[in-house]
Amino acid sequence: MKKSLKQIMGSGLSISLLAVSVAGAASAADTTTATTATTATTAQSKNLIVLIGDGMGPAEVTAARYYSKKFLNKDRLELDGYYVGKATTFSQSGPYTTESGAVTDSSAAATAFSTGNKTYNNAVSVSNGEVAKPYGSVVEAAIKQGKATGLVTTDVIAGATPSVWASHVRQRGNQNAIVSQYLNSGVNVFFGGGKTNFITKDEKGKRTDKNIIPDFEAKGYKTAYDKAGLDAIPATAGNALGLFALDAIPYVLDRDDKTPTLPQLTQKALDILSQNKNGFVLMVEAGRIDHAGHGNDLPTNIQETLELDATLKTIVDFAKKDGNTSVVATADHETGGLSLGRDNVYELNVDLFNKAKHSTDYLDASLKAAQTADDVREIVADNVGFTDLSDDEVALILKGDGTSSGRGGGYNAVVSKRLGVGWTGHGHTGVDVGVWAYGPIASLVKGDIDNTDIAKSGAKVIGADLTAVTNELQDKYLYPLFKVTRDSKTLLAARSLAEALDIKVTWDETTKTVVLAKDSQQLSVNVETGAMKENGAASALVGNVDNGKLYLTLEAFNKLTGKSFTWDSASERILIN
Amino acid sequence: MKKSLKQIMGSGLSISLLAVSVAGAASAADTTTATTATTATTAQSKNLIVLIGDGMGPAEVTAARYYSKKFLNKDRLELDGYYVGKATTFSQSGPYTTESGAVTDSSAAATAFSTGNKTYNNAVSVSNGEVAKPYGSVVEAAIKQGKATGLVTTDVIAGATPSVWASHVRQRGNQNAIVSQYLNSGVNVFFGGGKTNFITKDEKGKRTDKNIIPDFEAKGYKTAYDKAGLDAIPATAGNALGLFALDAIPYVLDRDDKTPTLPQLTQKALDILSQNKNGFVLMVEAGRIDHAGHGNDLPTNIQETLELDATLKTIVDFAKKDGNTSVVATADHETGGLSLGRDNVYELNVDLFNKAKHSTDYLDASLKAAQTADDVREIVADNVGFTDLSDDEVALILKGDGTSSGRGGGYNAVVSKRLGVGWTGHGHTGVDVGVWAYGPIASLVKGDIDNTDIAKSGAKVIGADLTAVTNELQDKYLYPLFKVTRDSKTLLAARSLAEALDIKVTWDETTKTVVLAKDSQQLSVNVETGAMKENGAASALVGNVDNGKLYLTLEAFNKLTGKSFTWDSASERILIN
Repeated sequence: MKKSLKQIMGSGLSISLLAVSVAGAASAADTTTATTATTATTAQSKNLIVLIGDGMGPAEVTAARYYSKKFLNKDRLELDGYYVGKATTFSQSGPYTTESGAVTDSSAAATAFSTGNKTYNNAVSVSNGEVAKPYGSVVEAAIKQGKATGLVTTDVIAGATPSVWASHVRQRGNQNAIVSQYLNSGVNVFFGGGKTNFITKDEKGKRTDKNIIPDFEAKGYKTAYDKAGLDAIPATAGNALGLFALDAIPYVLDRDDKTPTLPQLTQKALDILSQNKNGFVLMVEAGRIDHAGHGNDLPTNIQETLELDATLKTIVDFAKKDGNTSVVATADHETGGLSLGRDNVYELNVDLFNKAKHSTDYLDASLKAAQTADDVREIVADNVGFTDLSDDEVALILKGDGTSSGRGGGYNAVVSKRLGVGWTGHGHTGVDVGVWAYGPIASLVKGDIDNTDIAKSGAKVIGADLTAVTNELQDKYLYPLFKVTRDSKTLLAARSLAEALDIKVTWDETTKTVVLAKDSQQLSVNVETGAMKENGAASALVGNVDNGKLYLTLEAFNKLTGKSFTWDSASERILIN
Repeated sequence: MKKSLKQIMGSGLSISLLAVSVAGAASAADTTTATTATTATTAQSKNLIVLIGDGMGPAEVTAARYYSKKFLNKDRLELDGYYVGKATTFSQSGPYTTESGAVTDSSAAATAFSTGNKTYNNAVSVSNGEVAKPYGSVVEAAIKQGKATGLVTTDVIAGATPSVWASHVRQRGNQNAIVSQYLNSGVNVFFGGGKTNFITKDEKGKRTDKNIIPDFEAKGYKTAYDKAGLDAIPATAGNALGLFALDAIPYVLDRDDKTPTLPQLTQKALDILSQNKNGFVLMVEAGRIDHAGHGNDLPTNIQETLELDATLKTIVDFAKKDGNTSVVATADHETGGLSLGRDNVYELNVDLFNKAKHSTDYLDASLKAAQTADDVREIVADNVGFTDLSDDEVALILKGDGTSSGRGGGYNAVVSKRLGVGWTGHGHTGVDVGVWAYGPIASLVKGDIDNTDIAKSGAKVIGADLTAVTNELQDKYLYPLFKVTRDSKTLLAARSLAEALDIKVTWDETTKTVVLAKDSQQLSVNVETGAMKENGAASALVGNVDNGKLYLTLEAFNKLTGKSFTWDSASERILIN
C-alpha cells in the first residue's frame, strides 16, 4: 500500500501531505482501508480562505487591540477569538544577496505559505539557486480540482503576496510579467490596486507591450475601477478584475467613498467564488499594514490592522454560515521593529492613537513644500492636533529622520515619541508571527509552526495536490540565472543550467577550456580567448565570461540537447515544451 | 443547586472557576450529579508547575531559537513543542503614578498570573486603590489543600515574580517585609538569590531588625548557599531555603560551577515537593532575561532564555513521568523593545550571537575604569572578539548611550548594531506574551487569553479555591495609603480608610470641618486649623492635611470603630484581628 501510494503521488511528496492522499487514493481503490484512513485524517473543507496581514507582527496586533479597547468599546479583536499559534518566517540565503535569510521579505514568506517551500528573498514561487524551478501554489492546485479561486489585496495586485499564488518569476519586481501570467492562470477574481501593470506607459502605466485589460475582458473578466463598478459586478460574473488604484489602494485614513474597503472587496469575491459547486480558494491580503510599518506611521498602521480585523469578521461570518470552509490568517513578517513603550517609560499614550486625520504619506507633498517652522506647525496641528510642538520637534521634521523617509520620517518620529511607541528601523524584522484559524484547518496550524505549514495544511484540508501541480509546472518552465547584453542578447549562466539539463561539464586546465557535452554533441569554450568550438569545429555561438562565470545563449543548449527550448523574455524563463 | 453552590463558594467567585467547584461540591453531596458535572469539567492535575520568563517577549524567544538552530543543532526550542497561545499583560493605573497601566511591571503582571486579579504597577498581590486588600495566590490556596509549594528563581527570592505567590505588600521594594512574610507563609522551598534581604546591614545585607535565617532554620528549613549545599539537601527535607547570591544569581555567562543552574534548582525543588502525597505547586522563574533586556544585552539575554528552555525540559520530563502534573509557562512582559533586524537591513548576524564570554554587567567595572580608546578596544576584543572597532564605536562606548546604563549601554549599542538587532529603550513594552502548556491545563490557557487566566486556570486544574484564601486574607489585613512623619508617626489616608471601615464621612463647608462618624462615635477635624474634636470635646489625636488629603493615626480609627487594629510597620498594613 505504501509503495503504490508513493508511486501515485510522486516521491517529492512531504510526509505531512500523505494523510489526505491516503484517504483520496484509498477511496477509489479499497473502501475498507478508506474507512480506517478517513478516521485518522483531518476533517476536510470544500473552501479555503487565507487572510494575510502584511507586516502584522505581534506588536502591531497588540497596538490595534489597545485602540479597539479605547475607541471602539471592544476589549478583544475579532482575531483574538481565533488565535491558535505562531509561525517562524525565515527565508533562505539567495543568489542576489549575501543575506542569510534570517529576515524574510514578503515574496519569500508568501512563497512559503502559498506553496509550502522556503526560497530566497525576491523569489515569486520559484526555488532557490541559479536554476530555479517553479513551485505550485494551493491556488494552482485548487484550480486543478475545478475550484474557483481569487486574489484580493489593498496593495497592488501584482505585489509579492498575491503574485506567489498564480505566477512564477525570479524577481518580484517583474510585475508586468506577473500580470501577464495572471491572464492565463485560471484565477477567477483579481481585486486590488496596481492598474499600472495593466496599462501602457502612454497611459501613465508601466507596460511596454500593450494595455492588457482587453485580454482579460476577452476571457470573460468583468472589470471594475471603483466602488460603484464593484457593486455592479453580479455574483454570477464568474471572472472579475477590479483595479481600484493606479498603485496601492489608498490607506483607510485617506480613502473617499468611491474606493471600496477590504471587507467590501472580500464580500464581493465570496459572492462570486461561492457560486462554484466544487468550492473555492480565496486569498485576501491587508497589504498596507506593512507600508505604514515601513514608514513608522502607527496611527495608519492601526487602521490597516483594524481593516484586516473587520475583514476576518466578514470571512468568518461567511464560513460559519457556509459550514464547509476553513479559514487561516497569518502575517508574512513584522515591519519596522515596533514596540509598545519606549525609552524607560512604562506607558503608552493610547489617547492619541486616534488623532491622525490622514496617513503621513498623504502629508508628504505638503511636508516637502513646508518652508518655515510655522508651516510645519500648521501641518502637524491640522493632521494630528498637536499645537505645542517644541523647536526640536519642528527641527526634526524639517531635517527628516536621516533615511529616505525624509520629512515624513521626521514627522513619524515625532508622533511615535508622543504616542510612546518605538521603531528600530524602516525594514522587516524576524520575530515569529501569529496564526489564527477557524474550521478544520485550525487543528493543523496550531502551536508553533513554520510558515510553510500554512500551505501544506491548506492543501491538506481541501485535498489539493501541491506536488502534482508543481511537477506539471516544472515540466514546462525553468528559471536560469541570466543577463542581458548591451545589444539585447540574453545570456544564461552555463554551468548550473548545463547541470540541470544533464549536460556534462569538464574543465581542461592546460587549454583553459570548458567543455560541455551531451550524447554526441560537444561545445568547448576557451575562457581566455572566448573561442568556441562545436564538435571540434569553429562555432558562431555567442558566449561570455563574467567574473569567472561562463554565460551562453539558449541556442547553445538547444544544440547540445537537441531540444527546442524557447526564451520567454517577459517572464525571464525557459519554456521547456 | 446553583444557589447552594453560591453560598458554599462565596459570591465573589468568578464564572470560570465554577465548573471545578461544581464537581468538588457535588461529589461530597450527590454522586449522580457529580458524574454529570465531572464530564463537563476539565481533567484535574495533582501538581501544578508555573514557569515564568521575566521579560521574555516574542522576539526574545525567536532570538533564542536562531541561536539554538545555529549553535545547538536544534531547529526548535523545547518551548516550541508546547506553544498554545498568548496573553495580554496590561496592568492598571495606580495610586503612585499617572501611568495608564498600558505597560505592566513585573509585580502587577505576576499578581495577575498568581492571583487572577489586575492591579497597579508596584503592587504585590494587593488590590488597586487607596485602601488595598490582599489577593490570595494559587500557592496560598494550594497550601490550604495540604499541598507542598515552592518558589525558585535566578533573581532575588524577594523579587516581584516570586513574592506575589506568598506575600502581600503595597510596594514591591519592601523586600525585607516580603521575606518576613515568607517565614510564616507555609511555602516549603525557596531557592534563589537575594540573601541580602535575610541578613543585617552589619553583615552587608539590608535588614534592620535581625538575621532572619535562624528563624527559617527553626521552622525546619534546610539551608544551602552553593551547589554543594544544594546537593546535600535530601529529597526528604520537607522545607528548604537556598540563597545562592547576595543579590541576583549570576548570569549563565558569568557563573562558576559553585553556583547551581536553574534546571538544577528546579530538579531539587521537584525532588522535595513531590514527596507530598497531596501534590504540589511550584513556581520557577528565569528572572534575568529581563535584566539582560533592560541592559539591551542580547548575548546574555539569549543564554538566560535558553536556560529557561532547558528548565522547561526538566519540568516536562518530570510531568511526563509523573503523569499527574500540569505545566504552564508564560512571561510577564517584554523588556527593551527588542527587534530581530533593524534600520533597513534584512539580516541578522546570528554568527555573532555566541561570541560574548561574559555579560555586559560583568564588564561594567572594567568599562568604567577604561581610560583610553585602546583600553576599550582591549575589553571588547577580549569579551566579544571584535578587533576592528571604528573610532565612532569606541567613542560611543566611552560616552555611554545617554542613559543610566552608561558605558555598558554604549557597549551594548555597539554589539547590538553588529548583531543586527534593535532595542527601543531600557524599559518594558506592552506586546502580548507567549503561553506554553503541558497536561490538562493546556486546554484552559490556549488561544488569546489574559494573564489573569493563568491563575484562574491553575487554580481550576488543581481544584484550589482562590476565593476562600483571598477572603481569609482580607479578613486579616488591610493596606491603606499612608505616610510616615518626621517624628516617625504613621498617618493613614483618612477618607478612603473610613469608607472601607463603614465610617461615615461628611464635609461642613461653613466650618471647613470633616466629620467622621460611626455609631455613637464622632471625630471632627478643622482642615484649616487642624483642631480635632472627639464627640465634641478637644482631642489629642494626631492629624494632618496634605495636598487637601486628610491623614489620621490608626488610633483615631480604633476609637471610631471600637476595634483594636494594630499597625504592622514592616509590612505596612493594618492587622484587623
